[in-house]
Amino acid sequence: MKLQIFDSTLRDGAQGANISFSVDDKIKVIETLDKLGVDFIEAGNPFSNPAEMQFFQRIAGMKLEHAKIVAFGSTRRKGIRPEEDSNLKSLIAAGTEYVAIFGKSHIMHVTDVIKATPEENLAMIGESVKFLADNGKKVVFDAEHFFDGYKTDPAYAMKALDSAKNAGAQVLCLCDTNGGIFPDEAYEITKKVTERFPDTVVAIHCHNDGGLAVADSMEAVKAGARQVQGTFLGFGERCGNANLSAIICNLQLKRGYECIPAENLKNIYESAMTIADTANVAVPANQPYIGMNAFAHKAGMHADGVLKYSSSFEHVDPESIGNKRKFLLSEISGKSAIYDKLKNYFPTLDKNGKEMGEIVSALKERALAGYQYEAAEASFVLLVEKILGKYKSSFDLINYKIINEQPAIEGKVASAIVKIRVNGVTKISASDGEGPVHAMDLALRSALSEFYPEIAHVSLIDYKVRVLDSDKATAAKVRVLITSANSADNWTTVGVSEDIIEASWIALTDSIDYALMKQ
Amino acid sequence: MKLQIFDSTLRDGAQGANISFSVDDKIKVIETLDKLGVDFIEAGNPFSNPAEMQFFQRIAGMKLEHAKIVAFGSTRRKGIRPEEDSNLKSLIAAGTEYVAIFGKSHIMHVTDVIKATPEENLAMIGESVKFLADNGKKVVFDAEHFFDGYKTDPAYAMKALDSAKNAGAQVLCLCDTNGGIFPDEAYEITKKVTERFPDTVVAIHCHNDGGLAVADSMEAVKAGARQVQGTFLGFGERCGNANLSAIICNLQLKRGYECIPAENLKNIYESAMTIADTANVAVPANQPYIGMNAFAHKAGMHADGVLKYSSSFEHVDPESIGNKRKFLLSEISGKSAIYDKLKNYFPTLDKNGKEMGEIVSALKERALAGYQYEAAEASFVLLVEKILGKYKSSFDLINYKIINEQPAIEGKVASAIVKIRVNGVTKISASDGEGPVHAMDLALRSALSEFYPEIAHVSLIDYKVRVLDSDKATAAKVRVLITSANSADNWTTVGVSEDIIEASWIALTDSIDYALMKQ
Repeated sequence: MKLQIFDSTLRDGAQGANISFSVDDKIKVIETLDKLGVDFIEAGNPFSNPAEMQFFQRIAGMKLEHAKIVAFGSTRRKGIRPEEDSNLKSLIAAGTEYVAIFGKSHIMHVTDVIKATPEENLAMIGESVKFLADNGKKVVFDAEHFFDGYKTDPAYAMKALDSAKNAGAQVLCLCDTNGGIFPDEAYEITKKVTERFPDTVVAIHCHNDGGLAVADSMEAVKAGARQVQGTFLGFGERCGNANLSAIICNLQLKRGYECIPAENLKNIYESAMTIADTANVAVPANQPYIGMNAFAHKAGMHADGVLKYSSSFEHVDPESIGNKRKFLLSEISGKSAIYDKLKNYFPTLDKNGKEMGEIVSALKERALAGYQYEAAEASFVLLVEKILGKYKSSFDLINYKIINEQPAIEGKVASAIVKIRVNGVTKISASDGEGPVHAMDLALRSALSEFYPEIAHVSLIDYKVRVLDSDKATAAKVRVLITSANSADNWTTVGVSEDIIEASWIALTDSIDYALMKQ
Repeated sequence: MKLQIFDSTLRDGAQGANISFSVDDKIKVIETLDKLGVDFIEAGNPFSNPAEMQFFQRIAGMKLEHAKIVAFGSTRRKGIRPEEDSNLKSLIAAGTEYVAIFGKSHIMHVTDVIKATPEENLAMIGESVKFLADNGKKVVFDAEHFFDGYKTDPAYAMKALDSAKNAGAQVLCLCDTNGGIFPDEAYEITKKVTERFPDTVVAIHCHNDGGLAVADSMEAVKAGARQVQGTFLGFGERCGNANLSAIICNLQLKRGYECIPAENLKNIYESAMTIADTANVAVPANQPYIGMNAFAHKAGMHADGVLKYSSSFEHVDPESIGNKRKFLLSEISGKSAIYDKLKNYFPTLDKNGKEMGEIVSALKERALAGYQYEAAEASFVLLVEKILGKYKSSFDLINYKIINEQPAIEGKVASAIVKIRVNGVTKISASDGEGPVHAMDLALRSALSEFYPEIAHVSLIDYKVRVLDSDKATAAKVRVLITSANSADNWTTVGVSEDIIEASWIALTDSIDYALMKQ
């Protein structure tokens, strides 16, 4: 059965803390969702400011293969006629085929928040829908606080839907605005609505305040809802909106609904990464289906189990949505998992050879010293290169000296001197910085740039520190992870030492070695 | 109705990528969960390595108010007797009243993964449970892959439970090991089990691979499960385990179950922060109930709605679990909570006075700069002392200089010079160390010891570093937390800077100021 997918990343999703989109970002999100085969894309509220209206005018000419753009607004204000309401007029001016308007369906919100009579609110809904329909729009009516409203006064909540339906709304959307309902309530209340409106598309719009938005949406679909609203990555205010990527995967892979064209399922992971990059947020590593660790196995026994019988620890085939199985490298990984990871880098490596044995031992030894390679595959590849005798260092360190002082000198607390040798040529460089590692990083790059100008295209994009045996306080070991990137790729390296400077140095030099090796 | 809460943060949670606990961390987690009133704490697998066994021996003497510690292992290996199985023997040696063992209940895993006959697997379960029970243990039987197993061969899955029950298991735990079931399946299959075993505690153990672990657990409870297994913050392999903090809040606040003692509900938020800090991971800002933004409203319509009618955008009262309503743009919250915290230290402070206003503003300003005082109350008290004009510094820094170098000099990579003044007397000291912070710490203590000999009794017991804006790589701000102790007490301080040395210096001097102030 076909289910309509309605994405509000650009409207409700943009309400999330730290989420904002430029005009180009929004266009990129629309293109990505359209290509994936989403049915509706709610792109913003044209009334909220002039830039939003310009945006709708700009996208009016976009050629989309699949999706309809939706403009979002509200029912008319109380006490005026629809044609006097500038919000409704802006919805018409936005030029989309579909519009969504929210209105009240909870009696207490009518009387206590907007302070209207029950009848006036029903008129606000009906007249607004009719005005938009008369102007050629297809209307989605968002019944705000519908579930809480139904629990308080079911007859009035239904009357709100009746008003919208009788005035010509195409879709009746049931909103759990504060995100508090449970799956059984989502099922039971949606069922009442689909029974009352058997020929109308009923939509479900959930928030995740109870950690239940995916389940609530799925139960509403079971009760007959035919449109699911949410945001592709779960962006949204407070705890976020219903996460559409999880809902699509759950319902299409396991219950046979057609949410997006079947041949596009394998593009879900890539689409998620594109949207996350566009919003400049990292997808949580543990996010269902699309997280970096969603199909990552750590324990030796689990890794062994998944190789023997993949459904042991994988509820779906990761490749079906474009994600990949991963074996995290740790002291508890077995040989199979390590080999599986290495065979892409070293195709001639023999799984049962002497070298594999040496690699497994080295890994255990390094784990004892505090190294973890789960997130630092580049350092692991370099370690294996060293074991296989294939490693060639890109420079030798002669010495470094890093000075930190208070009071600061012209605002700089740290300075570094780094002396290296490349092919017999010695080079010494210095830099100051915001802190010791920053100064060291700049001095090393300056020294290397003469020999390896391509280093200029490598930038450090992430730096993490973890204290390992923190009960040793300031003499504790620290593990540093550095992520670097060039235009084509990014990679992570690791260093461990009691000295944070040395740990950073190890991760930094691995990062540079790896960049130069790849060329 | 009472529901048992079974937390596996230290066992299944520790399987999560980037989660690891030192022995002291584990004890802190146990104390926190016990104080909150959780029923069971699964603390690890004593068979996995000698350190784990030592850990069980160490905690055997811990006085807990509420929780029972559980040791985790598996059924015996095939073809041997239980008393020959070193894993079962280690469970007895661990010295806990309760043990949990996992065994197969999915016929395909029996035949294809462990390659045993159906009968031998049932014997492995029954004999293992009986052996443990005969040795005085109360046994939780974890039926691995139970739901998938039931869908494949319901009779065999039930037989696995029969074997455990007949051999004396106290709890039958239904595991959705690959995290793929849906809430309706969780309900239906759990119902079959609770109908078959009406007098036995049935437990539910879910993983979040479909984004449904909270809903699945709740539906199983509705079907009669009386124990919920999960991890307090949702830590765990792949997409994590069922998030107990959300389940407790959902079921206790909205369905009237007693998961933890009612008076402890308001400590949920603080307990979550303590566990997160101990694991050195940030709680996602959008995490249900406990996230920083779980009750955050953007100014405008939503803020207005929530003030008129709080349930508009809040499904529960945030204070009920110790979290706070937040207005992202027009910050008006917090004063009560801050006053609540301070009145123990400053009994004469006026809640509505000018000084409280200054404290609230200072706190906001420091939060913007990256300071967090949740785990660093000592630094917060010092900040308030400064605002109230009560602060007296124990020394003035004239300057410090810290040098890091490679190659190391006689094995030491760092040396520090610190010059201070106390009551007009100047003192300069130097030290080397394992790293720059260690050298600085030793040099400062050496300089202070002449003036404050009691400093010798203060030791640093914990040191943590978190990179704040990690996308600025090595120029990012870092937050350092230092925990110090003397024989009577321990306290935590915080420092923030782009320079890790300076951040450490701030936390370190706060720590010493606080120690001297208390005397």
